[in-house]
Amino acid sequence: MRAFAPASVSNLGPGFDVIGLALDHPGDTVEVERSDDPGVEIARVSGDGGVLSRDPTLNVAGVVAASVLARLRETAVAPSARRVPRGIRLWLHKGMPLASGLGSSAASSVAAAVAVNELCGQPLSRLELLASTLEGERVASGSPHADNAAPSLLGGIVLIRSYDPLDVLELPVPAGLWVAVVHPHCSVKTAEARALIAERRFRIEQCVANLGNMGALVSALYRADLKLLGRSIEDRLVEPIRARLIPGFAEVKAAAREAGALGCSISGSGPSVFALADDEARATEVSDAMREAFRTAVALEADTYVGRVNPAGATVEPDAAA
Amino acid sequence: MRAFAPASVSNLGPGFDVIGLALDHPGDTVEVERSDDPGVEIARVSGDGGVLSRDPTLNVAGVVAASVLARLRETAVAPSARRVPRGIRLWLHKGMPLASGLGSSAASSVAAAVAVNELCGQPLSRLELLASTLEGERVASGSPHADNAAPSLLGGIVLIRSYDPLDVLELPVPAGLWVAVVHPHCSVKTAEARALIAERRFRIEQCVANLGNMGALVSALYRADLKLLGRSIEDRLVEPIRARLIPGFAEVKAAAREAGALGCSISGSGPSVFALADDEARATEVSDAMREAFRTAVALEADTYVGRVNPAGATVEPDAAA
Repeated sequence: MRAFAPASVSNLGPGFDVIGLALDHPGDTVEVERSDDPGVEIARVSGDGGVLSRDPTLNVAGVVAASVLARLRETAVAPSARRVPRGIRLWLHKGMPLASGLGSSAASSVAAAVAVNELCGQPLSRLELLASTLEGERVASGSPHADNAAPSLLGGIVLIRSYDPLDVLELPVPAGLWVAVVHPHCSVKTAEARALIAERRFRIEQCVANLGNMGALVSALYRADLKLLGRSIEDRLVEPIRARLIPGFAEVKAAAREAGALGCSISGSGPSVFALADDEARATEVSDAMREAFRTAVALEADTYVGRVNPAGATVEPDAAA
Repeated sequence: MRAFAPASVSNLGPGFDVIGLALDHPGDTVEVERSDDPGVEIARVSGDGGVLSRDPTLNVAGVVAASVLARLRETAVAPSARRVPRGIRLWLHKGMPLASGLGSSAASSVAAAVAVNELCGQPLSRLELLASTLEGERVASGSPHADNAAPSLLGGIVLIRSYDPLDVLELPVPAGLWVAVVHPHCSVKTAEARALIAERRFRIEQCVANLGNMGALVSALYRADLKLLGRSIEDRLVEPIRARLIPGFAEVKAAAREAGALGCSISGSGPSVFALADDEARATEVSDAMREAFRTAVALEADTYVGRVNPAGATVEPDAAA
């Protein structure tokens, strides 16, 4: 059984830890099979340049697979469900860069959760799967934030109203919306970027600015008002702190604006930067301009991704072995 | 020329300084006439128990009338506009309690702005009037917040995306929504309540909680999902600090929940408390329960207001002298 989970852009400017969107590509793939050995075994990890742990208690795909297995054992088995296996053997293929701000750990977590659930006849709901993926996010970043995992799992643009209880809303995606993402060849450790935020204290004016933009951003999605959406991509809480971790960020953001982006901010904890645009050609121009700005300002090469918001989220793929 | 401007409930839980709604009643009335004496003269203030200043530079109605006059002089005169008078004579009738958390200063400011603009043939737009009313809010509270003045002026539920530039969005009002407000007979000085917030610094977890609820609250208005709206009325930033200024708040909030309120929080800087309900009978039960809780918990009498959200905002009334 094989599942694909896409990259995602979280925070979207004002919405630290509460909103994210799914990209079409890149993404991670997890393949699982039943095993008579108890627990989770990671048979292979590829596409990570040898960086990720193969220890199933340290690799997020292993952690989440184990969490889903445990949850399956606690859950009353539906008639359609298959027997929960003693163990799982797992293959992880990273199709996206690590520590990029594109929800890399969430994509691995979500793909693992969906693959294991599928293997057992889908007894768990998407919300239950999301709760399990948060175990992976906790391992990856020290904090179980859901604003990458939720869009990677569900697709579209997803709001996390509350973490306790977990309360997740799928928001409308305006038809004309395009996303340009540029990933410079440097990395930001999510756990370190989060620690920088955790120790800070914020003034009420910063909160007010983000609350106003957060409300306007959600309003813009319902109105399909792309101009309003663009000017709501403004972050007075986190961007000023994290921008310093991304060489050339100011120049890249200026280049995106110059090239006609509706709005631009840091993707997740960076170093990737995203911009929104109102058509494909504009989105491509914006991504080219951002890549060029990384090159000229700080001599960093970068990959770019241009696409619509991915409406499907994680998908089950035909088994390669079949 | 006479204008009425209604009371308003600001913050609505998570949205400190960025969202408010207009009530049907109570409200303030301002009457103005042309005067050959330059500047603004306050001829009479009634309904305030003699508390408010008659000095036009200290009374918000006078401040705002002067601001509108100045703005009218700077504005190119439309063909429909009448001559801008040398001066204004002004009567203010307070139809609502002071320092109540119901936007009392905003109502006076808005009524004054609308009356003066009407007297001159309405040359100023509503957004220009709103900018003038903020001069009144600055005098009243030390801070030009717009989340009372905007709904009092425009009606409905209004979001302030940004203060600089001023960017205001009118949000949809779900058909079944009722508001219950209870005003205990004590007062909270807005300027003091604001100072308490201004000196605080907030943790990112508090910001995240309010951002999630803010996004969900706006989403609930578009979906007309009253249950979601109710559970989004949650404030981890300001309510915990301001609740201490309102004797019996915890008991009153519990009573509202018990009586079936969708959600409940402090109205503006208090001491009024608002609750939302999904029909009139429930809203009345909730307001009765809140009033009773103020009485039994802390021996405070209270007024109650129950109504729908006021769609009209400020209105021009037939001249009493006509």
